Amino acid sequence: MLVLGIDPGTAVTGYGLVCDDRGGSAASRQGPAGIGMRLVECGVIRTRPRDPLSTRLREIHQGVTELITRHHPDHLAVEDVFYSRNVRTTLALGHARGVVLLAGETAGLAIHEFPPAEVKKAIAGTGTATKEQVQFMLTRLLRLRVAPEPADASDGVAAAVTYMLTAHVASFRNGVDRGVRSGRRPR
Amino acid sequence: MLVLGIDPGTAVTGYGLVCDDRGGSAASRQGPAGIGMRLVECGVIRTRPRDPLSTRLREIHQGVTELITRHHPDHLAVEDVFYSRNVRTTLALGHARGVVLLAGETAGLAIHEFPPAEVKKAIAGTGTATKEQVQFMLTRLLRLRVAPEPADASDGVAAAVTYMLTAHVASFRNGVDRGVRSGRRPR
Repeated sequence: MLVLGIDPGTAVTGYGLVCDDRGGSAASRQGPAGIGMRLVECGVIRTRPRDPLSTRLREIHQGVTELITRHHPDHLAVEDVFYSRNVRTTLALGHARGVVLLAGETAGLAIHEFPPAEVKKAIAGTGTATKEQVQFMLTRLLRLRVAPEPADASDGVAAAVTYMLTAHVASFRNGVDRGVRSGRRPR
Repeated sequence: MLVLGIDPGTAVTGYGLVCDDRGGSAASRQGPAGIGMRLVECGVIRTRPRDPLSTRLREIHQGVTELITRHHPDHLAVEDVFYSRNVRTTLALGHARGVVLLAGETAGLAIHEFPPAEVKKAIAGTGTATKEQVQFMLTRLLRLRVAPEPADASDGVAAAVTYMLTAHVASFRNGVDRGVRSGRRPR
């Protein structure tokens, strides 16, 4: 399973590709919470502030489409836009988010959206975790030496890891449910 | 010159195609303000409220792309999103607007954005004109029997007509400027 996580923005769109690594090395199988996952790539798509909005949107769409073509992820995890008090900022973010979702939908990926608080809770255990706490946990979960850089790339990685963790919890719960129903103990 | 006007929305996206008709019939040349223009087509792209946002965005993008492929317009005129007090609504509109701009940009159209007040002013002479006043003027400018229906299609038509009128004013001004600079009287 390969997940592309995106943190959309008109100026900087962060991304991270995280794969399931359960069948991997012993080290990965012994990762925190027993979930093996590995960071495949992370980075940012930057656009020029002087360019018209439509040009910047095309570049974001193109960048995300290229990532999908190159890596063939199964899932797209997108952080929900932060509801800024500045309506103009929120609107601009909506534009960027729209073309990101379109790129995933056109490529036939399963799309998952997570509000910022859910990302924080999944990764650091609480919806009020600081950016530093999230970065610390990301570094541990992915067994990295340093947190993903720059910060916008890190937010993309966080979205991907959130899907990985929630999917793991869901499949574990399914296993428990099946075990109970058939009278067997869950494995 | 053919202009595609769009009024973006996640549920209903209105559109109108308006062409320059200066070389047309005597009737069109005698239109109000001396600007001949003709409504080629108008309508709406509707999406199902139960579908996920990404599916709806794909349908909007596809609908606009199909219009461009079928009619080959030169310009895309898009109404600016109304800054609603409801941030969630504004954000959803941003998504729709993003994929509309992307469709125009990908097809290489010249893109023009107009705030609602500018559309009202260009068509009805004042930024505080009512919807009825705008519809009345649209009906006269395009020599229609009734206003374009439904209302969302009408807003798309209004965006296209706004570009047509502002482009006409700009070309007239250019003519005046050239005349003054070269010592000739404007034609």
